[in-house]
Amino acid sequence: MPPLRIERLVVAGVGLIGGSFALALKQAGAVGRVVGLGRTRRSLDRAVELGVIDEAADDAAAALRDADLVMLAMPVGQTAAVLERIAGHVGAKTIVTDAGSTKRDVIEAARAFLKDAWPRFVPGHPIAGAESSGAEAARADLFRGRKAVLTPLPETDAPAVRLVADAWRACGAEVREMSAAEHDGVFAAVSHLPHLLAFALVHDVAQQPNAATLFDYAASGFRDFTRIASSHPEMWRDICLANREQLAEALTRYQAELDSLRRMLAAGDAASVERVFADARAARNAWLAQIEAGERK
Amino acid sequence: MPPLRIERLVVAGVGLIGGSFALALKQAGAVGRVVGLGRTRRSLDRAVELGVIDEAADDAAAALRDADLVMLAMPVGQTAAVLERIAGHVGAKTIVTDAGSTKRDVIEAARAFLKDAWPRFVPGHPIAGAESSGAEAARADLFRGRKAVLTPLPETDAPAVRLVADAWRACGAEVREMSAAEHDGVFAAVSHLPHLLAFALVHDVAQQPNAATLFDYAASGFRDFTRIASSHPEMWRDICLANREQLAEALTRYQAELDSLRRMLAAGDAASVERVFADARAARNAWLAQIEAGERK
Repeated sequence: MPPLRIERLVVAGVGLIGGSFALALKQAGAVGRVVGLGRTRRSLDRAVELGVIDEAADDAAAALRDADLVMLAMPVGQTAAVLERIAGHVGAKTIVTDAGSTKRDVIEAARAFLKDAWPRFVPGHPIAGAESSGAEAARADLFRGRKAVLTPLPETDAPAVRLVADAWRACGAEVREMSAAEHDGVFAAVSHLPHLLAFALVHDVAQQPNAATLFDYAASGFRDFTRIASSHPEMWRDICLANREQLAEALTRYQAELDSLRRMLAAGDAASVERVFADARAARNAWLAQIEAGERK
Repeated sequence: MPPLRIERLVVAGVGLIGGSFALALKQAGAVGRVVGLGRTRRSLDRAVELGVIDEAADDAAAALRDADLVMLAMPVGQTAAVLERIAGHVGAKTIVTDAGSTKRDVIEAARAFLKDAWPRFVPGHPIAGAESSGAEAARADLFRGRKAVLTPLPETDAPAVRLVADAWRACGAEVREMSAAEHDGVFAAVSHLPHLLAFALVHDVAQQPNAATLFDYAASGFRDFTRIASSHPEMWRDICLANREQLAEALTRYQAELDSLRRMLAAGDAASVERVFADARAARNAWLAQIEAGERK
């Protein structure tokens, strides 16, 4: 297998994810020139200064036409608009991929706008992130040991999928494939719902008349439980709306679980409450043990 | 003010909390002899080996009769039974306090059983803990910089409250007073509810047919959100049941918050979703900033 070589990479949205993708491919020697596209010239110039990209695109159309790979790494809420804007300029061999946290909405937009380039669109989602954001936070090792999920469709070009998979492997990620529907269901349950729950708890506490007292007594358990409520509101608004059907299903299941616990407490059913708690702890500890075993490999 | 001196301290339940209380008072030079009471002789012998207590009580009645202070530090679910058992043996000047996470239930039991000693019962709750437990985990600095809440009643002896408050201060804690009802409401909101929510989420995920896949893609956000679901099931069963009325109220408010978010998502009301998320993030970040400012003092 020849080593991966992407002569011209266009990164649209040079933040934590797009910037780290560029840095990782540079470090792997897998990329020639990295061209940045973005909302403001200033942030692109800053990304050049930081060495994250080689140049800011002066002519977006020319950059897209000559690109081997375009990585869309803006917030999911902007992806459709960006796809619409770039669609007419994508080169005849250019492969397009994205890094969005939801996949069915992105696929719908790509199918609607990309026309001839649609079979060369490879939907993707690297499972990495941090509370920090922006090109300043980008680092070459962000994806090392993380998973990158691709959700290609039957009509997606196999060589396009291979190139994107190779790119993620060059970044140190483990590549997985699943359907977009499965992806969105899985992440509704283990990522989008917990974010919603954490935002909801902090909002609930902050709305109480004695909010100052409540926060005064909140301790480390509360801090860790709500860490994800310090995530970016605009980004999570977009994710929750883009995946709202699957998120609503996950929320319905969760509310049924809460109703069941409420009934156990009202009935003073100590054995059932303890069983739920003990099963949860056992499941969580088994999961942590598996992660640790994976890390030792 | 003369320095605090507790000649004989009895610790009933020599685990993380009771053991750390003993160690902290020893380190402060505020205690003479520490006698342990517990469910098993073996764990008491181990606590003696570790230097957490000076002796295991051979004669519980004698130990209680001669004690200046008795600290009840067993799981809250056992407190009533222990109070009943010790009630007839407490000395005429002995002060009794506890370290339970709920206060109204403990007060009810103490009022029912302690008889003449009831005015010398000082209900307390140190806001400290860890996932580890047992005398092995005890350490002299566990309460340093933490809050210790006392919830005395109008009929509680003022000198008894002073002695217990002084003991917590000698452990490095900041002493606060509030009513038992306020205490239980506050901790339902910022501690008991989050624990219930975390246990419920992990249980919900573990019940799904694709649980293995779900856990496989769960990342650091899920790990932190569910950290408290690795807490002790028996202990949290007892806390949730002891405080079930206030917990049910907190849960009702929280479910209303979730219903409201569900409606915003169904309506595609991006502005409202973002406002909830942004308010939550702002409230959480303000709280963290306050904690950091406090730590810098």
